[in-house]
Amino acid sequence: MPNAKGLSINLATVRQQFDLKQACEACARQGIEWVAPWRDQLQKTGVPETAKIIAGNGLQVTGLCRGGMFTVDPNAIDDNKRAVDEAAAIGANHLVLVVGGLPQGSRDLASARQTVADGIAAVLPHARAAKVPLAIEPLHPIYAPDRAVVNTLAQALDLCDALGEGVGVVLDTYHLWWDPELVPQIARAGRSKRILAHHISDFLVPTRDLLNDRGMMGDGVIDFKGFRRAVEAAGFSGPQEVELFSHDWWNKSGDEVIAMCIERFNSVC
Amino acid sequence: MPNAKGLSINLATVRQQFDLKQACEACARQGIEWVAPWRDQLQKTGVPETAKIIAGNGLQVTGLCRGGMFTVDPNAIDDNKRAVDEAAAIGANHLVLVVGGLPQGSRDLASARQTVADGIAAVLPHARAAKVPLAIEPLHPIYAPDRAVVNTLAQALDLCDALGEGVGVVLDTYHLWWDPELVPQIARAGRSKRILAHHISDFLVPTRDLLNDRGMMGDGVIDFKGFRRAVEAAGFSGPQEVELFSHDWWNKSGDEVIAMCIERFNSVC
Repeated sequence: MPNAKGLSINLATVRQQFDLKQACEACARQGIEWVAPWRDQLQKTGVPETAKIIAGNGLQVTGLCRGGMFTVDPNAIDDNKRAVDEAAAIGANHLVLVVGGLPQGSRDLASARQTVADGIAAVLPHARAAKVPLAIEPLHPIYAPDRAVVNTLAQALDLCDALGEGVGVVLDTYHLWWDPELVPQIARAGRSKRILAHHISDFLVPTRDLLNDRGMMGDGVIDFKGFRRAVEAAGFSGPQEVELFSHDWWNKSGDEVIAMCIERFNSVC
Repeated sequence: MPNAKGLSINLATVRQQFDLKQACEACARQGIEWVAPWRDQLQKTGVPETAKIIAGNGLQVTGLCRGGMFTVDPNAIDDNKRAVDEAAAIGANHLVLVVGGLPQGSRDLASARQTVADGIAAVLPHARAAKVPLAIEPLHPIYAPDRAVVNTLAQALDLCDALGEGVGVVLDTYHLWWDPELVPQIARAGRSKRILAHHISDFLVPTRDLLNDRGMMGDGVIDFKGFRRAVEAAGFSGPQEVELFSHDWWNKSGDEVIAMCIERFNSVC
């Protein structure tokens, strides 16, 4: 069996093919040791049952996806606290935060960014008490309007500096590969012990759908080995987590997708 | 007639409706004082004839679009020197550089960025002699694979610092609006006298086509007045140049598009 050590499968990658139980079983069959479920999957299956399925398949959890959405959800603080509890219940290493885009009708980025900082600060005591680190995910600038107003690693790390303990960052190749400041900012993230996750997927040319046309590693323009070297040099040796939103890959069999993730992880990443 | 003072029309905005002569006449009829032609328009009309049309309509030229493409055109240096000569011949304030994306099959951003720096350095003596400033345009990160590997204002200004006199930057709302470093970097650009142009168009949500779905000012999420205040505070008071690549607007009459540019320039920008 090809080596899947150090690889995590974000379950969105096979969300059209498998429910949570099927996905965990398929991962376990192929030697995967880590998964990252989404909250809708968790809630559909039930939290205690999810914990049982994960443990029963010998799996560990990198991150729970996702909290955040501070700028667009009026109940975001409470909902993020619930997400922290869910992450704790399944033993997730962290809770991923996709912070939210501009509120409907707003053009005020600075204000939205302040809302995010305030939101995370409000959730943080609960997260610290639960021992669930909050992992801020800077998203590609193309998502600033409607997904996340945190758009560079430097910006995410500035947020971490301001917020203190219990918060860190997700380093996602898809979102960060283009950044001229990437290597020094990854080093900075390492120095300040902020690296919580390393997500992988490729950037296709052309990209036909802004949300759901991510590429399997090796099919696009990202230098994964270079990215990994920078992450390792910064002291992070946790799993690389494949997170692939892709109509093309959702149309293949889940077993085939997981097998290809393992193959490309070994050959390209 | 509504006030068009301080507005430049990039002729790509009406390129499907008008040839260069028709576009210049239409602009002049509506009180526009500045235009920015593209090289294909120039070459089709002929450079001396273009110069005559522009002057004959009482127009001045903000920038000539475009040089660049250092990473993908093996004859880029010579071609950029020709572009400098064309810019000088029509009295353009500057030559816009879209620097080029990753070469076919490459994943080496650092190398592509070095090729850009070397390319501009090679063209610069010719540009200085012709007194045509080279205007580096940082493009939105979404274009890093196939258009331009200069993707932030900070990166463009670092390039300017390294290159010395005769080079500056284009501040384009569409490309830069999301940048957490936008305001301090615009101030930096002002301090180092690098601001050569201020382009405007809006970012639509959703964006249906990555290349040709820019929005008329006011139809998207960009805070134009805030952007302008930062540019003015940095000491730049040149024209705002509408550059709208949009199937929607190309399908309307050219006169209507120009009228709407003037209206929105006055109400939104």
